[in-house]
Amino acid sequence: MGASQEIADAAAAAMFAEDRNAHAMGMIVSAVAPGSATVEMTVLESMANGLDVCHGGVVFALADTAMAFASNARGGTNLASNASIEWLAPAGGGDRLVAEASETHHQGRTGVYGVVVSGPDGVVAVFHGKTKRISDEGPASR
Amino acid sequence: MGASQEIADAAAAAMFAEDRNAHAMGMIVSAVAPGSATVEMTVLESMANGLDVCHGGVVFALADTAMAFASNARGGTNLASNASIEWLAPAGGGDRLVAEASETHHQGRTGVYGVVVSGPDGVVAVFHGKTKRISDEGPASR
Amino acid sequence: MGASQEIADAAAAAMFAEDRNAHAMGMIVSAVAPGSATVEMTVLESMANGLDVCHGGVVFALADTAMAFASNARGGTNLASNASIEWLAPAGGGDRLVAEASETHHQGRTGVYGVVVSGPDGVVAVFHGKTKRISDEGPASR
Amino acid sequence: MGASQEIADAAAAAMFAEDRNAHAMGMIVSAVAPGSATVEMTVLESMANGLDVCHGGVVFALADTAMAFASNARGGTNLASNASIEWLAPAGGGDRLVAEASETHHQGRTGVYGVVVSGPDGVVAVFHGKTKRISDEGPASR
Repeated sequence: MGASQEIADAAAAAMFAEDRNAHAMGMIVSAVAPGSATVEMTVLESMANGLDVCHGGVVFALADTAMAFASNARGGTNLASNASIEWLAPAGGGDRLVAEASETHHQGRTGVYGVVVSGPDGVVAVFHGKTKRISDEGPASR
Repeated sequence: MGASQEIADAAAAAMFAEDRNAHAMGMIVSAVAPGSATVEMTVLESMANGLDVCHGGVVFALADTAMAFASNARGGTNLASNASIEWLAPAGGGDRLVAEASETHHQGRTGVYGVVVSGPDGVVAVFHGKTKRISDEGPASR
Repeated sequence: MGASQEIADAAAAAMFAEDRNAHAMGMIVSAVAPGSATVEMTVLESMANGLDVCHGGVVFALADTAMAFASNARGGTNLASNASIEWLAPAGGGDRLVAEASETHHQGRTGVYGVVVSGPDGVVAVFHGKTKRISDEGPASR
Repeated sequence: MGASQEIADAAAAAMFAEDRNAHAMGMIVSAVAPGSATVEMTVLESMANGLDVCHGGVVFALADTAMAFASNARGGTNLASNASIEWLAPAGGGDRLVAEASETHHQGRTGVYGVVVSGPDGVVAVFHGKTKRISDEGPASR
């Protein structure tokens, strides 16, 4: 295992330990590597909106978390500056959602990421975002 | 009070009664009118990420909820198809956040909304999204 | 006329004199003030795509130019970092398009703008973007 | 060569023949396949803005054209409904720009595309957009 994968693993472990929101939503990080991450969760009944489908903001939060793990897996502390989402199909209570984040571009302190969120019946949403490295010190060294 | 304000109030009451996610996050709807809505919440400690600032996805969810109330206040059932967010300043635990949604454009079944999310020290995020009316029957009549 | 309006007028005059692309597309700046601008153009036959409607990129360029004038009207040199557009109705050859840019938020070196592009039959597109001030020296002093 | 590649080639030829804007900007389509396309152009002096760098709207138009060819290469007539762009580095007069569009997701009448625009020194911009099929009849059959 190379040094960059060790950095990715250490960053993910440190971030996850501190991320109370991810815990509260039942997310787990199932894979991480420099520039990529996979985060999963099951849609709870409490995450449904008035139309009885998973709140769009919940799907966004899952994708955004996957981007956070992917960007910090490069080392340093990276924050999202902007993001966009296309909701393509609804998710329902009990669905297992998988968000796969990968790097479209990375240069200097800036990263651009794409995240595809899938459920049992296919793609639920596509998300894109940009991150900025605000510190060279990463989550694992704080 | 005109008929359109009555529709807005009834839609908001019906939506809010059913929106378990908004309840779980402690949101309240402080104002609603045809095409606009204000939704507020206090950032809980459990909403912080590993950097001890409010998770970007939480700010997004608040803005997205404000757009949902604003769009459904026109009548019918309206769903978001896409949205984007600029995170401009961090929010911390205990901060009261206010999301004000207003209509940039509305024609036929399509609405375009802007939402400004403010905290105690000024603007935290700016959000934009598009909604589609998928049914002429609204939350209040289901 | 206040000093800030004088800055806006001087910046617009200097920018427009140098903007060969705006000239090539037939754009004119019909209004400018600190944080806002109106730019107009007529859709030429050469701007149509294979479907005989105005190319979406042309509508985007008009909106983007309006944001550029609005952001630089504050003083300094401001560049767009990202933008998004919703195309809501087609524009045809010969249509007069008017893009009105206004500031949603402005703090420090960052500005967030909304632009509504209208044609003879109503709104054609809604655009949003973010700008960064990269220099305190503006177009008028170069 | 399979039938789907023949459809892609025929659609590209028909679209390009009719796209006066692409001609006016000096674009060429250097590759096309179902769901992907590469479009190239050289930045002309007339495409510079007042800062002597290529207008952001020109880079957007190149990326948007690549998405148009990629989406129509699937068959039928597909129009963009929304798009976003991150400008990551400036392009200058004389630079050769290459826009590579690929499909992130495709289902039913909806497609989601990513486009990376590169110049001689690396990535200039990253673009994302969504298309809708508005007719099953494509450019080649009109």
